[in-house]
Amino acid sequence: MERHLASELQALHERLLAMGSVAEIMIDRSVAALARRAPRLVEDVLAHEEEMDLLCIEIDDRCFTLLALQQPMASDLRFLVAAIKINSDLERIGDQAVSIALRARALATQPEVKPLIDIPRMAELVQAMVRRSLDAFVRRDPALARSVIDEDDAVDSLRDQVFRELLTYMMADPATIPRALALILVSRHLERIADHATNVAEDVIYLVRGEDVRERGDKERRKGLRSSRPGDIDPGRGRG
Amino acid sequence: MERHLASELQALHERLLAMGSVAEIMIDRSVAALARRAPRLVEDVLAHEEEMDLLCIEIDDRCFTLLALQQPMASDLRFLVAAIKINSDLERIGDQAVSIALRARALATQPEVKPLIDIPRMAELVQAMVRRSLDAFVRRDPALARSVIDEDDAVDSLRDQVFRELLTYMMADPATIPRALALILVSRHLERIADHATNVAEDVIYLVRGEDVRERGDKERRKGLRSSRPGDIDPGRGRG
Repeated sequence: MERHLASELQALHERLLAMGSVAEIMIDRSVAALARRAPRLVEDVLAHEEEMDLLCIEIDDRCFTLLALQQPMASDLRFLVAAIKINSDLERIGDQAVSIALRARALATQPEVKPLIDIPRMAELVQAMVRRSLDAFVRRDPALARSVIDEDDAVDSLRDQVFRELLTYMMADPATIPRALALILVSRHLERIADHATNVAEDVIYLVRGEDVRERGDKERRKGLRSSRPGDIDPGRGRG
Repeated sequence: MERHLASELQALHERLLAMGSVAEIMIDRSVAALARRAPRLVEDVLAHEEEMDLLCIEIDDRCFTLLALQQPMASDLRFLVAAIKINSDLERIGDQAVSIALRARALATQPEVKPLIDIPRMAELVQAMVRRSLDAFVRRDPALARSVIDEDDAVDSLRDQVFRELLTYMMADPATIPRALALILVSRHLERIADHATNVAEDVIYLVRGEDVRERGDKERRKGLRSSRPGDIDPGRGRG
């Protein structure tokens, strides 16, 4: 029975990593579709979404079956609870990539606002966050998980840069407003992916340390940022 | 032991409902802060956030303890898995309300773009979705849960209306762009709250029917919408 549980947990591990790889591919292709104005890549993202959905259902079923039949204790139980949460974050990362892909498809038929530099850079950063949060999960490495959480600030700063630059375009030429707005919203999708990777990293720390860090260090740290950005160009973004 | 489990599950139920009430209050106050230009209400939202965080940790702990010590079977297990997911959706609803509140605070010091009508209406709608998704959870009522999922279309249509109207303001007077953009982003926060309520409703259906509807009916329905909105004014929003 115990050996069976160990091999089932190993299989679950692998399915979650497979799901992480699909998520990474989806982010990569959706931003490539946008930056290279290649609507063909949009179909690729949508095809991967179906794979993602099937994996998500499979992983949920695996977790549920293991909880029901194996009655795992302590650390295995903590692992399964983390797996349920990580599964749902990965699925939502896929949803964000789909939203980016659909915007890429619509923008491909319209004149370019500007060549994209910061958005692809932001995409690389969030892809790395997704990858590293899952690495941290596999290795049960809280220091690596912590580094993912720290990386979130770099994503926020790129998001602000994208915002500022596109705002300039919009103010200078109102005809660019709808397209520039779509690009700003793409940067928000990427920001949300980074948030999901951060959630995964927080789950890893919870898994390893057995204590809930989510509401302590991090939220306090973020709250600290709130008051330090009164002159933020994006009204209401007083928080990292 | 079984009676103990039943009373523990009942307590968990009540804590989740308490969290739902806090979430509703936070949505209400954050949008009131915005619409009435009342930064005092922002502090109220931030105070509730702490309550939310504590409830979230408490509920996670309760779920984990019940899974570990009571080894619940079948439907109780399904209930606990749903509770873990619903807890995390409610916490994220609180985060979105905080984001709205922070934008309200920043906007209160600047001239008004226009009196707000659709955003408060959208807020009422998503508050009702949150409330009804939790009612559906309490009553284990899949039809009510289904009605929450259907409501999402009305939220999307208000979101598009907000977008279109503010776009007109931005194009007519570029000086309004930063403030109008902040309002568009508020509508996106409300949209995300509606998404979380939809997730809760999907968990209720899963809980009651014991089958995963998330990837079948609903995603298919949404995919159907994708191709039907080629002329959407918001580029890339081809999906409900």
